[in-house]
Amino acid sequence: MTAVGIDAVEIWTGKLALDLAETFAPRKGDDPEKYTKGLGLYESSFPDAYEDIVTMGANAAYRLMERKDLDPEDVGRIDVATESAFDNSKPVSTYIAGCLEEVYDDDFHHANKGERKFACIAGTQSLDDACNWIRAGRNRGRGALVIASDTALYARGDAGEATQGAGAVAMWVTEDPSLVELSTEQGYGSADETDFLKPNQQFPSVDGKRSIQVYLARMREALVDFESVAGKVGPEDYAYAPFHTPYPGMVRKAALLAYRHTIRGTEVEDALADEIGRQPRRADFADEEAFDAAIRDYMDDLKEQPAYHEWYDTHIEPTLAVSERVGNWYTGSVHLARMAALYHAAEADRDLAGEKLLVGSYGSGAQAEIHAETVQDGWREELDALSIFDRIAERYDLSFEEYEQVHDRHNHEKQSELEPFTTPEDEFVFDGWGPMNERKYRYVE
Amino acid sequence: MTAVGIDAVEIWTGKLALDLAETFAPRKGDDPEKYTKGLGLYESSFPDAYEDIVTMGANAAYRLMERKDLDPEDVGRIDVATESAFDNSKPVSTYIAGCLEEVYDDDFHHANKGERKFACIAGTQSLDDACNWIRAGRNRGRGALVIASDTALYARGDAGEATQGAGAVAMWVTEDPSLVELSTEQGYGSADETDFLKPNQQFPSVDGKRSIQVYLARMREALVDFESVAGKVGPEDYAYAPFHTPYPGMVRKAALLAYRHTIRGTEVEDALADEIGRQPRRADFADEEAFDAAIRDYMDDLKEQPAYHEWYDTHIEPTLAVSERVGNWYTGSVHLARMAALYHAAEADRDLAGEKLLVGSYGSGAQAEIHAETVQDGWREELDALSIFDRIAERYDLSFEEYEQVHDRHNHEKQSELEPFTTPEDEFVFDGWGPMNERKYRYVE
Repeated sequence: MTAVGIDAVEIWTGKLALDLAETFAPRKGDDPEKYTKGLGLYESSFPDAYEDIVTMGANAAYRLMERKDLDPEDVGRIDVATESAFDNSKPVSTYIAGCLEEVYDDDFHHANKGERKFACIAGTQSLDDACNWIRAGRNRGRGALVIASDTALYARGDAGEATQGAGAVAMWVTEDPSLVELSTEQGYGSADETDFLKPNQQFPSVDGKRSIQVYLARMREALVDFESVAGKVGPEDYAYAPFHTPYPGMVRKAALLAYRHTIRGTEVEDALADEIGRQPRRADFADEEAFDAAIRDYMDDLKEQPAYHEWYDTHIEPTLAVSERVGNWYTGSVHLARMAALYHAAEADRDLAGEKLLVGSYGSGAQAEIHAETVQDGWREELDALSIFDRIAERYDLSFEEYEQVHDRHNHEKQSELEPFTTPEDEFVFDGWGPMNERKYRYVE
Repeated sequence: MTAVGIDAVEIWTGKLALDLAETFAPRKGDDPEKYTKGLGLYESSFPDAYEDIVTMGANAAYRLMERKDLDPEDVGRIDVATESAFDNSKPVSTYIAGCLEEVYDDDFHHANKGERKFACIAGTQSLDDACNWIRAGRNRGRGALVIASDTALYARGDAGEATQGAGAVAMWVTEDPSLVELSTEQGYGSADETDFLKPNQQFPSVDGKRSIQVYLARMREALVDFESVAGKVGPEDYAYAPFHTPYPGMVRKAALLAYRHTIRGTEVEDALADEIGRQPRRADFADEEAFDAAIRDYMDDLKEQPAYHEWYDTHIEPTLAVSERVGNWYTGSVHLARMAALYHAAEADRDLAGEKLLVGSYGSGAQAEIHAETVQDGWREELDALSIFDRIAERYDLSFEEYEQVHDRHNHEKQSELEPFTTPEDEFVFDGWGPMNERKYRYVE
């Protein structure tokens, strides 16, 4: 079967930054390490006054099309994943296509446009659908633009306020991709959960403790399901494991569980047995409670082992390098983690072609999906063309008062006026409301 | 390539009915024919107090699973299409799976659940994705549940108020389907349009005149795109042409355009030439305006031709038999049209196996899609198992005052209390709100 996957990626960060340690923590009366060590977050991205999910998505897509020298005629499908939609009927992809039609001579009337919603996992679901469209031979020689765009805001004062973020990831999905091929094997862990909701509201209601449990339970289920079709996953089978990153601290918890799961029954477990014993097996315990307690003890010991630290530092930590600087981008998050991993390999001048990534996506509500990706020969050229860290560094650094104004600006119930902090250049901007209360956009030279 | 398509369908109508001629028109001071002749609508369906998009979708899906003797293990994917969602993050499919898990011993944790939004076309997009998932060999022997569920309400007094409706269509998508195989060829007509929006609101803002123009323009574009891959479409190539039906009057307009387009250059155009001349060709006119006027004149004449009436009565009119009794079901609408057509053939004891349908889906905002379906050998058995017209007849007939209460009940900003008009039996019902403002459901024996 033809290789299908991601040919190229562009990332657009909201242009404003809130420093959690320097700006947020003092005003909250918190120790900065609550954020930098506890959550593992340093900064959040926010959209400037003229930015929203449409402009961020359109700007990422335009940059991608220009870099890959694509015309509208090359694009057969534009799928947007978001949980920040501002319309209950008209999809964001139509607005983004409308933006792009301002700068291209041709149109996208031939392109199937869609929108998927399932908390943070919808970006991966859209990617999956786009790959199937190509694998099924339906693409008429065209590729798919898959765009994950979100403005992840929480109510002021909510526990999630420190994990906010905003940005878009645009992916160009084709046959014989330059970046990564996606496996046809995938695993799911999916259940009807009430961990994180937005019932007719912009800002989420979150059961924080439950949401951690659900993330871990669904990821574990997805890994077991993935192994049922792809075979046992060993700790060294994958160069990196990019996971959905609501905040890096969550991924630390998941990583320890994944490590325990993958070393079970391997030489690694044997080698660690002298230090911390073998993993508890359910059959050796009278009840679930005793077994769980033994597992927790084992995990506490495992966490301190140099072997675990080495694995974590090489396979997981590098995936967090973007997230810790931009916060949670919801649907874009796992796709940032993938790019951070590849960036790490490029920085180390590592030859990654042919190696594999274990990609774990997650959406509250809740569903996890795990699939593998094989890094392609053209990966390095693609990575060298990305400038995400430059753009992270260029963001405007908000004061706390400015942050408050920005939050109000993007609060759908307030949408208060705000003078932009940055000057748009060669990009799409929000341009006010039309007669049917529709959002309007224009391109600024 | 293996045949992929719809194996079986179940339809769940909201249990209340509003008679437009008898109940609605008098209170509006309107001639009943404004609705019955103008719009082509007789009644609208509404959800009872304990119904919503989740219960209607879950009830349709449960009935389908029971009839086809399916277990959760058989279902690899649950996709819901809706533009009536009540949560900006958690998809309706998770609620529906949660309902179904109440009545089955096994769970759906292995199933990929999703939600698509694009006005009324998302049901067909979900169907398309599910078919590609199977065609690409990703389904691990499982099928997909595709559910289109909507409560199409307009603000009281809005011009769209007469076109309301509520119900769900559940489709079981498999290899070697019993009902219809979907063509791999499809045509698109898609543009960024401001014809119908719901910007952070439940009830739509509609530009009525524009929305008719856009429907016709996008459908025409999709037909031309379809012909570019599937070959010229002749007026007799398809047994029926089920189209998205916001109200039957819209389909009448589209049908005349489709007839003109498909007879162009055929013997039918030649045969009609003595009566009404040949179709105007752009090259024969000095400007677009003169050409358009000539086209309008030709269409006015064409509409009066017995040949057109005969074609309309056999190919189009039968597709409207459900819609005219239930109103607009948004994402479900075109799927009702398909079933109405098949029902017509079954009633006439017609042998339809191997014949084709030309299916035209549409979503405001705007996008049309056209594909073909080939009726399969098992179609008649599937049709005989459907009882949609019985259930339409069983609905509770609302007075105008009751209708007003029902509208308030389902208005997200009011959600007023309402005693149900009907008694639920062997079905899922809405059971109030939980602590995180989540909607809860239970099964009533």
